[in-house]
Amino acid sequence: MWGGRFEQANAEIMVQINASIDVDRRLYRQDIAASQAHARMLAAQHILTAAESGSICQGLTAILGEIESGQFVFKAELEDIHMNIESRLKELIGDVAGKLHTARSRNDQVATDFRLWLRDAIPALTGEIAGFQGVLQKQAAANAQTIMPGFTHLQIAQPVTLHLHLMAYHAMLERDKTRLMDCSNRLNECPLGACALAGTSYPINREMTAKALGFRAPMANTMDAIAARDFVLEFLSACAICAVNLSRLAEELVLWSTAQFGYIRLSDSYTTGSSIMPQKKNPDAAELVRAKSGRVTGSLMQMLMVMKALPLTYNKDMQEDKAAVFDTFDTLVLCLKAMSGMIGGMQVNHGRMLADAENGYSTATDLADWLVKHLGLPFREAHHVTGAIVKLAERKGVKLHELALADLQAIEPRITANIRDSLSVNSAVTARGL
Amino acid sequence: MWGGRFEQANAEIMVQINASIDVDRRLYRQDIAASQAHARMLAAQHILTAAESGSICQGLTAILGEIESGQFVFKAELEDIHMNIESRLKELIGDVAGKLHTARSRNDQVATDFRLWLRDAIPALTGEIAGFQGVLQKQAAANAQTIMPGFTHLQIAQPVTLHLHLMAYHAMLERDKTRLMDCSNRLNECPLGACALAGTSYPINREMTAKALGFRAPMANTMDAIAARDFVLEFLSACAICAVNLSRLAEELVLWSTAQFGYIRLSDSYTTGSSIMPQKKNPDAAELVRAKSGRVTGSLMQMLMVMKALPLTYNKDMQEDKAAVFDTFDTLVLCLKAMSGMIGGMQVNHGRMLADAENGYSTATDLADWLVKHLGLPFREAHHVTGAIVKLAERKGVKLHELALADLQAIEPRITANIRDSLSVNSAVTARGL
Amino acid sequence: MWGGRFEQANAEIMVQINASIDVDRRLYRQDIAASQAHARMLAAQHILTAAESGSICQGLTAILGEIESGQFVFKAELEDIHMNIESRLKELIGDVAGKLHTARSRNDQVATDFRLWLRDAIPALTGEIAGFQGVLQKQAAANAQTIMPGFTHLQIAQPVTLHLHLMAYHAMLERDKTRLMDCSNRLNECPLGACALAGTSYPINREMTAKALGFRAPMANTMDAIAARDFVLEFLSACAICAVNLSRLAEELVLWSTAQFGYIRLSDSYTTGSSIMPQKKNPDAAELVRAKSGRVTGSLMQMLMVMKALPLTYNKDMQEDKAAVFDTFDTLVLCLKAMSGMIGGMQVNHGRMLADAENGYSTATDLADWLVKHLGLPFREAHHVTGAIVKLAERKGVKLHELALADLQAIEPRITANIRDSLSVNSAVTARGL
Amino acid sequence: MWGGRFEQANAEIMVQINASIDVDRRLYRQDIAASQAHARMLAAQHILTAAESGSICQGLTAILGEIESGQFVFKAELEDIHMNIESRLKELIGDVAGKLHTARSRNDQVATDFRLWLRDAIPALTGEIAGFQGVLQKQAAANAQTIMPGFTHLQIAQPVTLHLHLMAYHAMLERDKTRLMDCSNRLNECPLGACALAGTSYPINREMTAKALGFRAPMANTMDAIAARDFVLEFLSACAICAVNLSRLAEELVLWSTAQFGYIRLSDSYTTGSSIMPQKKNPDAAELVRAKSGRVTGSLMQMLMVMKALPLTYNKDMQEDKAAVFDTFDTLVLCLKAMSGMIGGMQVNHGRMLADAENGYSTATDLADWLVKHLGLPFREAHHVTGAIVKLAERKGVKLHELALADLQAIEPRITANIRDSLSVNSAVTARGL
Repeated sequence: MWGGRFEQANAEIMVQINASIDVDRRLYRQDIAASQAHARMLAAQHILTAAESGSICQGLTAILGEIESGQFVFKAELEDIHMNIESRLKELIGDVAGKLHTARSRNDQVATDFRLWLRDAIPALTGEIAGFQGVLQKQAAANAQTIMPGFTHLQIAQPVTLHLHLMAYHAMLERDKTRLMDCSNRLNECPLGACALAGTSYPINREMTAKALGFRAPMANTMDAIAARDFVLEFLSACAICAVNLSRLAEELVLWSTAQFGYIRLSDSYTTGSSIMPQKKNPDAAELVRAKSGRVTGSLMQMLMVMKALPLTYNKDMQEDKAAVFDTFDTLVLCLKAMSGMIGGMQVNHGRMLADAENGYSTATDLADWLVKHLGLPFREAHHVTGAIVKLAERKGVKLHELALADLQAIEPRITANIRDSLSVNSAVTARGL
Repeated sequence: MWGGRFEQANAEIMVQINASIDVDRRLYRQDIAASQAHARMLAAQHILTAAESGSICQGLTAILGEIESGQFVFKAELEDIHMNIESRLKELIGDVAGKLHTARSRNDQVATDFRLWLRDAIPALTGEIAGFQGVLQKQAAANAQTIMPGFTHLQIAQPVTLHLHLMAYHAMLERDKTRLMDCSNRLNECPLGACALAGTSYPINREMTAKALGFRAPMANTMDAIAARDFVLEFLSACAICAVNLSRLAEELVLWSTAQFGYIRLSDSYTTGSSIMPQKKNPDAAELVRAKSGRVTGSLMQMLMVMKALPLTYNKDMQEDKAAVFDTFDTLVLCLKAMSGMIGGMQVNHGRMLADAENGYSTATDLADWLVKHLGLPFREAHHVTGAIVKLAERKGVKLHELALADLQAIEPRITANIRDSLSVNSAVTARGL
Repeated sequence: MWGGRFEQANAEIMVQINASIDVDRRLYRQDIAASQAHARMLAAQHILTAAESGSICQGLTAILGEIESGQFVFKAELEDIHMNIESRLKELIGDVAGKLHTARSRNDQVATDFRLWLRDAIPALTGEIAGFQGVLQKQAAANAQTIMPGFTHLQIAQPVTLHLHLMAYHAMLERDKTRLMDCSNRLNECPLGACALAGTSYPINREMTAKALGFRAPMANTMDAIAARDFVLEFLSACAICAVNLSRLAEELVLWSTAQFGYIRLSDSYTTGSSIMPQKKNPDAAELVRAKSGRVTGSLMQMLMVMKALPLTYNKDMQEDKAAVFDTFDTLVLCLKAMSGMIGGMQVNHGRMLADAENGYSTATDLADWLVKHLGLPFREAHHVTGAIVKLAERKGVKLHELALADLQAIEPRITANIRDSLSVNSAVTARGL
Repeated sequence: MWGGRFEQANAEIMVQINASIDVDRRLYRQDIAASQAHARMLAAQHILTAAESGSICQGLTAILGEIESGQFVFKAELEDIHMNIESRLKELIGDVAGKLHTARSRNDQVATDFRLWLRDAIPALTGEIAGFQGVLQKQAAANAQTIMPGFTHLQIAQPVTLHLHLMAYHAMLERDKTRLMDCSNRLNECPLGACALAGTSYPINREMTAKALGFRAPMANTMDAIAARDFVLEFLSACAICAVNLSRLAEELVLWSTAQFGYIRLSDSYTTGSSIMPQKKNPDAAELVRAKSGRVTGSLMQMLMVMKALPLTYNKDMQEDKAAVFDTFDTLVLCLKAMSGMIGGMQVNHGRMLADAENGYSTATDLADWLVKHLGLPFREAHHVTGAIVKLAERKGVKLHELALADLQAIEPRITANIRDSLSVNSAVTARGL
């Protein structure tokens, strides 16, 4: 394809390190769509005849069929998806196939294909997020009254509901979705027509191809069109943030299904046993979701480092972007599905959650608030008094509401019996409108 | 402040690892603004009296003055900016200071302060980007006719203008700005009122404080308000992408100021000499901008790893976020200023750029296009013929337009004399409308 | 110092981005030692007179005193520690100071200083590790008989001792130490004499300076001596691995001090309270150690990215190495001290550990082993039988040793009464020799 | 295998996220060797009969044959290589296969297999490094007299030889090798016998299996044996450092094959052409090697993040380690082979290198040294005088040795004609013994 000036074939190692077909074959649909839009534009601009364009488009449609039916034979020596398709096109329609590459280059072609792929992939991904949000919402709704301890520093802090807890993730995922949509929107400009880097002297119509492919507009600067990969970095960043958010919930699933917490029981469908310890039910899926945040972050690190200090415009280094993006997409979709399965199928142990909420002096703040509201103490002083009461309860081994009034009054004489109402987790939750 | 239940003072090592005042003092302005908004709301809701609120607000204004005039004494044993300010407030206005912390917690306080800081910092950063874009635009305008080689794989590809090249960075930076603005917009919700994690039983008005501080709305989920740091990760990501974009131009400045390229001469103001080699002018600032992409990326990696697998809600790990963000902000501002200085002050060597554009067979594509347009060859065949012509020119050691017509015709007999017009870089650039 | 050829002063921004004195002043001791060794060698080789060398060495000793007593004034406009010291030397001893820089360059000077610093810092760091290992060992020894559950997947797996658990970290830290010592050993070669990159025409004696400074030998290749920073990357890697190891124990401290686990109680010296929740004792130090693994990893990522694709030899990018290394060293030392404090001062709740070990069917493997040993079942079959027994115990809500013999025999009729001996955690631990 | 207690099958998504067989099948040889060593030990300890052990070992040998001949059918529902092999063993030899898993667990099994794999892989990798070092040495030897400019800051600094330049990489790679060997040596301890985490009550002989498998010794602490993955992190670190070293030479190959440098010509076997620009020869392989440093670093980042804060002992997160390690190994081997091909086959343009060395005032340091040696100027003053001379030469547009003696004397009257000898690159190189 490009061999006119070459006297030696590529070394076998060169083919191995250089060929991208095993990865970029995944762009076949976008590559064909972009080629057809390009051919139609060439005809509209009288650069090709209608017949030539028609023959090319038909041939490409045939190739699409071959690929989707598994008949197409991909060849590493043809390097990439673009060359594999063009080569097959020549077999199918003859020399006119060579006219397709008029007024374009693989540089604008791959940038176009890849932006198209991401633009299509992102809604699929946000769809998975939305699906998981639905599962969260359903589980939250079923647990609107389930009282559990809220934690800071993994110490019991104040009573909350499982609803509030799960919906915190719903809120995070909502932002993850908008981040991905911002990314999709920002990248939706068309590189086609930038050619190698400098545009072309052919009278092409870039608005036409951009519109045909659903892009907002052609990219204005042709060198930017070829050289930019910030859209890849932005996608990987958004995915890494989402994966880290998921890792937090995954960690909680692991914690909550320990014997010590005992808050939930994951279904057999998402746990495994041990080859040696017959009693084990391990939360493997949750652990793997937790771990995958590392994988996605690793891919982000990879591409930030790859892009560092690359001069304009195209450099072969950039070929690494597709493996990183495809793996990240697949990983995140898999994590979202696994999380949906786990959250959707988990059994909640309401008793354990409630019992823990009642332990841990989780209503101490409410006690302090009572002192402020009823005795007019400044909060800082109320905090200090409450600290002394907690220390007493701890020494006696009782809960706050089990302390005798006399004990409370020994610390702050103005305390009255109605303080008890503040010390139950139910009233604490209700008072906060949870 | 929180010591009511404690019997032992913190170890010295604990103070060292735990205190954040050296870092978070930078939030003082936001902390005071948020406290004043909170105090006013408490008065409006009759939780404090007008007099109490007034006294608190006045005291805080006095503290602001002390900090800005350098009189304020920060103390590590008071841990953080919140405690330092509240402690001083008590010195100034007495016990009523203790009422400020009614219906809030350091958890919602720090999240509010930090979001306020970033919301203010991002426009300052996009302003720096815009400033640098202005410098690029000016240098580009001055070089609208400066022909230079466009590169792919750092090989001379096709002639372009320096204008097009510089404006490619302008386009990248434009996206960097919108990414940061998306981040600013997304984070502009108010955590205040989430208190420790679960809200409060006081009849507070979260809309009022949110509005007073310029936030779009209160954050709906209180646990999310405390636990989320995706806004930090998004900011660091956007900065890392921008830093990587800058590293590419920095690399080009290093390349272009080599003796081998000789395209530009950086001003003495942004270069240094050698302690041993008296002839050296080194592009240190460009190298440092290139390197800083690693620093910003390192901070992003740090925080992705820190946030991984943290259960809800607040964990002390999150305290690390501020050092990472402040350093990233300062680093990027410094890089943008240094780039502005370098690009603004560089001298362009038009002759070297043009000479290189004329070397390297950079109009070979135009030759191929001529064969397509005038002889009707399919592009692929034209590409092959051109490859043979380049090989010939290379063997003869001449440029494309220096080849004799007879030589060209020996390869493709139908070539005519008017092909010469396509082979000059001027016509190539003009034909592309650059 | 290098300004002979320069007509303009550096821009203020350039000074800001370029100056390293705030960071590299920490090398002062190494810089002075290396300069003295260099001056003595110059005299021995008759490049300087004995008097010149003596005057230089005396002046440098005076400067050392000034720095250590806090009298020395560091100046940003003198860029770095080397120039600050040489400039002061000139003030002290006059023009002869200018002879010190004969046959050397800042390039070999900084590489020498930095290797010296690390060679000295690493034993300090391994000393801290050893100190922490001592604390682990003491706490382990005190808990040689403390039975606790061993975990896989954070599920109770089999009973172990706290001794075994803590000593696992001891073993990891032992490898951390040897990794650091390997690094120290590998970097202990002397760059001095490589000068700018190519050595010198002066008849210097590199063996003499190398030996005087305690290096194994001069670095053989002068370009390698200047360009290499793999010693920095190796140090950061070894520290990142150690920090990750510490993060695992830190996570366990956080877990173990939850109400749910309740295995330990951290001392007041290493916990903090809450500004709003008077009952809280938060394991802040453990959380911060956990988080610092991100900080150290971030620095490693930074420097891998900085060094990527840097051509030989010195590039200003490499200046970033010192801030990364110093911060990593300080961070890791602080983490080790904090861990020593926490582990040394924690109270162990033997009862909770034992109770958990007895729950969770942790002796199921021992039951399976009994079936193999006494009934000759293949392990796989024994595993299956045991799984059925666990399911039964779970259904009945009892522990394994609380099942009636008849229940066991209903599943496997050949089971005899002596199986009970295998089902206690004590016998399980004893049988494994723990 | 572990399903005795489970009532539901795993979800399809669970199988997808959980199964590792596509990755860990690569451990088959190590898994079989370890199982055979284990079976023989069980027989020697009379835990199995000689017949049982013999049958197991024979069956495993048969399976090895099946896998190596491609007949073996791997099944995702059997999760991993261990289960796939054991399951097949049962088909081949019947229920006695179930006895193999006596006194071991998949936890110690996989740690053993993986350490064995790395212990075998590292010499293969250092062998590749050594091979590439041989290529460097040969190319260096052929260019012992090839003078080229040495660079700092990518500015021409002083003349060196290509030999010195290439051998700098030889030296870096030598350290890369020792780092890998240190890693191999450190990890060469045997986890087998640690079982799930706590050892076993069977009277096993860990020394025997360790010795049979070529390990230095059994790992002393059984929990460490299962939980530790620092050997993975160390391997990935060593590879990342090596990949970064390679990226530096790759960058130079890209630079040197530009039209502007023109120092080398890469062979057709390691370059590619353009689909649109017929004149291009692009250094794709060098660019890809440069980029792969990002890939390897990404894998290191991934695993540092995965291992962060994992409590003891085994967690499923650790399963991610194998994909990262295998990909890193393959990537680095490919890079080393590609570098060998490029360096071995490149043509050096001695003329361009020499011409550049003669430009750029690369002997200015030698001029300064002459002033020191012959006129007794302190180096700092000589540096200043030389700066003025360079400025004059720059203004006149001549090289240093082309300046008239009168011009030199106008700046420093004591300069004599013999200074010329110092100003040629040949004498500069010779004077330094290069």
